[in-house]
Amino acid sequence: MRVGVLGTGMVGQALGGKMEELGHDVVVGTRDVQARLARSEPGRGGNPPFAAWLKDHPGVRAATFAEAAGHGEVVVNATAGHGSLQAIELAGAATLADKILMDVSNPLDASGGLFVCNTDSLGEQIQRAVPQARVVKTLNTVNASVMVDPSRVGDADHHVFVSGNDQDAKDEVTSILTGWLGWKHVLDLGDITSARGAEMYVALWLRLYRATGDAMVNVKVVR
Amino acid sequence: MRVGVLGTGMVGQALGGKMEELGHDVVVGTRDVQARLARSEPGRGGNPPFAAWLKDHPGVRAATFAEAAGHGEVVVNATAGHGSLQAIELAGAATLADKILMDVSNPLDASGGLFVCNTDSLGEQIQRAVPQARVVKTLNTVNASVMVDPSRVGDADHHVFVSGNDQDAKDEVTSILTGWLGWKHVLDLGDITSARGAEMYVALWLRLYRATGDAMVNVKVVR
Repeated sequence: MRVGVLGTGMVGQALGGKMEELGHDVVVGTRDVQARLARSEPGRGGNPPFAAWLKDHPGVRAATFAEAAGHGEVVVNATAGHGSLQAIELAGAATLADKILMDVSNPLDASGGLFVCNTDSLGEQIQRAVPQARVVKTLNTVNASVMVDPSRVGDADHHVFVSGNDQDAKDEVTSILTGWLGWKHVLDLGDITSARGAEMYVALWLRLYRATGDAMVNVKVVR
Repeated sequence: MRVGVLGTGMVGQALGGKMEELGHDVVVGTRDVQARLARSEPGRGGNPPFAAWLKDHPGVRAATFAEAAGHGEVVVNATAGHGSLQAIELAGAATLADKILMDVSNPLDASGGLFVCNTDSLGEQIQRAVPQARVVKTLNTVNASVMVDPSRVGDADHHVFVSGNDQDAKDEVTSILTGWLGWKHVLDLGDITSARGAEMYVALWLRLYRATGDAMVNVKVVR
């Protein structure tokens, strides 16, 4: 499948790399390709500089946000939350129309809080910015390594969520999560407003991370 | 042990009733005892009117917030969130000084959102209102029935959290959760600011409840 990944950081590298490994045709988008390739500092998550990562992933091509969005049958928003709306705008509402947009971003601000929550969410902001796209919020509740390898946490016996207005899109994203990434438990939270729940949970995740010292942590929904 | 429970609704009845059953000396506090006893409508959770409940719990005494707070060696804030600060104020900062105040409330507003979150929490507001009390936020992440009987969800193989500034108080509350109420997994999230995580999680809980139709739902932390 043709996949467009918006974002060249730890999350974009994890998802883009995994999808390349699975044999998909991956284009990773950034605002300014040359400027991004020229930056040589490692990522905040300890991930390699983008140019070095790209060299190790010869099947992946770097391009603009618009080109990556145009390339993908499925598009993944893996940008940092504070840059997501600009990235989506540069990707283009017309380009994203009718496509599945997997939004895995979090609205984290510099203070460790959220810049939107409670009465709105970043998932909803993105859906409003590209009303014809089929936005599915997912994977934002776990670390990048866990997104692409849920077995790193407790035999993969834990949950990931999907939120969105389009049931077919949620079903297709669920197939990607289970078939490509190895998730065992995918729970449909409801329409895109339910992204509020998944994003606000991150405030608890950050405390779980701080309390346990372990980023390989997730929750299992128990009934 | 002498226990003061602030709040006569579903949560106060669940916790007060369970503690009476365990042989503790329970006083349940409300703003105006006579007015509360005169109200004959059932609770929003389908729980009985307070007067009827009290009749079925002869070991429990009804009193004012201040009397219940004065009675308890441990005091439980089981009021609805929008009334919690007033209840705490009526209980009295001097009366609550040095006591453990188990805060199980949630800052839910009428629209289903939170009236405080992200940069503050109801747990912190309560701690600031009674700076000498030893506030421990806990149990707010589950339904009242699950609070007092965690085995109603998946063999009790799931978590409850504690947040607070006083380690001894958190240890004592942890003993209450495990010894009195049957909780198997209690996770210390950190100081009282970590109540933000536990309270914001409720936005996800509400979506889990809506998606599954099941209030007997909780999460297990998996690593």
